[in-house]
Amino acid sequence: MRFLRWPVVSDSQAEIDRIAFFSDAVFAIAITLLVVEISVPDGPIAGLATALADRGPKFFAFVLSFLVIGQFWISHHRVFRHLRRYDLGVMWLNLLYLLGVAFLPFPTALLGNYFHSALVGVFYGASLFAPSAMGALLWFYSARRGFLRESPDTRQIGARALVTPAVFLVGIGLAPINIYLSVFCWIILLPLLRLLLSATAE
Amino acid sequence: MRFLRWPVVSDSQAEIDRIAFFSDAVFAIAITLLVVEISVPDGPIAGLATALADRGPKFFAFVLSFLVIGQFWISHHRVFRHLRRYDLGVMWLNLLYLLGVAFLPFPTALLGNYFHSALVGVFYGASLFAPSAMGALLWFYSARRGFLRESPDTRQIGARALVTPAVFLVGIGLAPINIYLSVFCWIILLPLLRLLLSATAE
Amino acid sequence: MRFLRWPVVSDSQAEIDRIAFFSDAVFAIAITLLVVEISVPDGPIAGLATALADRGPKFFAFVLSFLVIGQFWISHHRVFRHLRRYDLGVMWLNLLYLLGVAFLPFPTALLGNYFHSALVGVFYGASLFAPSAMGALLWFYSARRGFLRESPDTRQIGARALVTPAVFLVGIGLAPINIYLSVFCWIILLPLLRLLLSATAE
Amino acid sequence: MRFLRWPVVSDSQAEIDRIAFFSDAVFAIAITLLVVEISVPDGPIAGLATALADRGPKFFAFVLSFLVIGQFWISHHRVFRHLRRYDLGVMWLNLLYLLGVAFLPFPTALLGNYFHSALVGVFYGASLFAPSAMGALLWFYSARRGFLRESPDTRQIGARALVTPAVFLVGIGLAPINIYLSVFCWIILLPLLRLLLSATAE
Repeated sequence: MRFLRWPVVSDSQAEIDRIAFFSDAVFAIAITLLVVEISVPDGPIAGLATALADRGPKFFAFVLSFLVIGQFWISHHRVFRHLRRYDLGVMWLNLLYLLGVAFLPFPTALLGNYFHSALVGVFYGASLFAPSAMGALLWFYSARRGFLRESPDTRQIGARALVTPAVFLVGIGLAPINIYLSVFCWIILLPLLRLLLSATAE
Repeated sequence: MRFLRWPVVSDSQAEIDRIAFFSDAVFAIAITLLVVEISVPDGPIAGLATALADRGPKFFAFVLSFLVIGQFWISHHRVFRHLRRYDLGVMWLNLLYLLGVAFLPFPTALLGNYFHSALVGVFYGASLFAPSAMGALLWFYSARRGFLRESPDTRQIGARALVTPAVFLVGIGLAPINIYLSVFCWIILLPLLRLLLSATAE
Repeated sequence: MRFLRWPVVSDSQAEIDRIAFFSDAVFAIAITLLVVEISVPDGPIAGLATALADRGPKFFAFVLSFLVIGQFWISHHRVFRHLRRYDLGVMWLNLLYLLGVAFLPFPTALLGNYFHSALVGVFYGASLFAPSAMGALLWFYSARRGFLRESPDTRQIGARALVTPAVFLVGIGLAPINIYLSVFCWIILLPLLRLLLSATAE
Repeated sequence: MRFLRWPVVSDSQAEIDRIAFFSDAVFAIAITLLVVEISVPDGPIAGLATALADRGPKFFAFVLSFLVIGQFWISHHRVFRHLRRYDLGVMWLNLLYLLGVAFLPFPTALLGNYFHSALVGVFYGASLFAPSAMGALLWFYSARRGFLRESPDTRQIGARALVTPAVFLVGIGLAPINIYLSVFCWIILLPLLRLLLSATAE
């Protein structure tokens, strides 16, 4: 069945750049839309300090998602640095990846509204897991089709592509116990593990 | 009447890239704005699970529109890969195309609010038909003016450019009967037909 | 007083491209945000057809602003095609131009809400006049500093750069009489005059 | 401890361009989202003129933030013009910089709602200080790692990178006395000082 192999394969750098560019734009918009979900106080001035303090969890969720999407973007950047060919499969996997990224303003706002809910912790964690798993798929699909530029750090990036969704899964498991444990996974453990992988690979 | 032919024609690749870039940005923004229309629950935590479940149709409409706009973007990408000259006609057809794309967050949100309304099904379908028809127009206008780079798949892309609005028309016709039939057309039948066309053309 | 001349002048094409790119992004976002201002009906389904019909002026204002911003973008495109050097003056004039463009979603939504108000007609017209005047300023400033690439159509673009704000001014004057007269100026008369100028210049 | 030095260093111009591009997109979106926070009047037409006049502080805050973000963008542009290498440190400092920029629609809307509140003046000022300090950090980090292209104006840009957060700090100090004093610092004093620095450096 030749249908199962996407018929179009292109190795034009200009077109790969256009896909990377489109992805960057989606990242940039998703990351900048996060703040729109924080409602701006407009009540009497006497209650303003309280109103701002009440938004603490929302600010925290904003910063958290910004840093996580930032990590996603850096990883995506790295994948596309190695891509020298693509087919429709790459385009669709990338689109599904971006679907996950574009969705993130919703779970972020939800986390800001219900910071201590286990349900929301799991929902938020799953929303992070989805694009990171898709990113791993994108990497391994490209590797198997021979679309990746050979480089000394190819193996290391593959390892990292697996570590990221794994850590997110652990984070989801911890959310019902304590949301701060999940947060610790997402913004402390994850960068640390990735750095370790970088260091040992050399 | 020489007015009927746009006076400015340029074959600068840098300028064609700028048009493609601007279009990409509109696609990226429209696709990322879709999620903003899903209101974030903020009621008491006891009702949260229900509130999320109630948003099912909205999530579905979000994913549906994301995938359709994704298909539009891939097609647009393909058209611009073949463009080697342009005139004001190309620019305006492209702008009208983007007008349709930029409008999509509205019908998407409407579909999420009234999932089983035949009126909304038709409205949503028509909103998808408009840019796809404009895309076909853009392709055939460019072909007739001799703006397209010769390539083995030119004919096949032309066929695909016609199949897309046709399938959307069928989808509109089915919406009053059952919205899921339309959805089937838009996200199952359409990619399938396009793949078939790709396969037979080779 | 050498302060009055901006000290930094650069002729790097890559940097001019970055300014053009940033401007394109602002155009693309402004043009795509227009639709967000149209509230999505969510009342009982029986009133849906009426609710959509009531939004007629909003849809009209959306399309109108989209076409006008589209014209602005095409003009801006043309200016930057001729730019081969820039200084801080160009950067700030361009930023003020973009300030006007980024503001447009507000008057557009206002026009949608109060379609037959003379005050709103004038406000909307003035909001279109401001960026078009800034565009003319940008062109003539660049011309006087010798930043423009010589080309046969330089004079014609200058003439067009003056015609656009002039037509917007006339449109403002007509708004208190009848908003449709203004609309006629903005989307019929303006493109026509510009085409005429193109034709006679050759 | 080699962990403290980021392991990845790249000198590919294409990749530096991609970071600059992503940053530009965030700037462009933040600057264009400012207007969305200004609610569009939709009450009876008789109260429209008052409703618009009441939004005076919001329009002022919109223009103010637009001009400040514009300055940030011009500075950022200048930094990236000199960058010829980067590492993960540059990427993360840049992301933190963009975090500050992406946050700005919130304090801008807040300033529009509570124009004469000292608390809001300080909050707004601090929101401007954060990215400008991060910009200085980005510059000096890149300088110390030897990532900057040598050029006659390197020292002058460094001086400017320090002046900007310093002036924002002074502006914060003045906000409790009178918000207009702060505004004076941010949009009159700052550009003036930067121009002076440019002039004396030559």
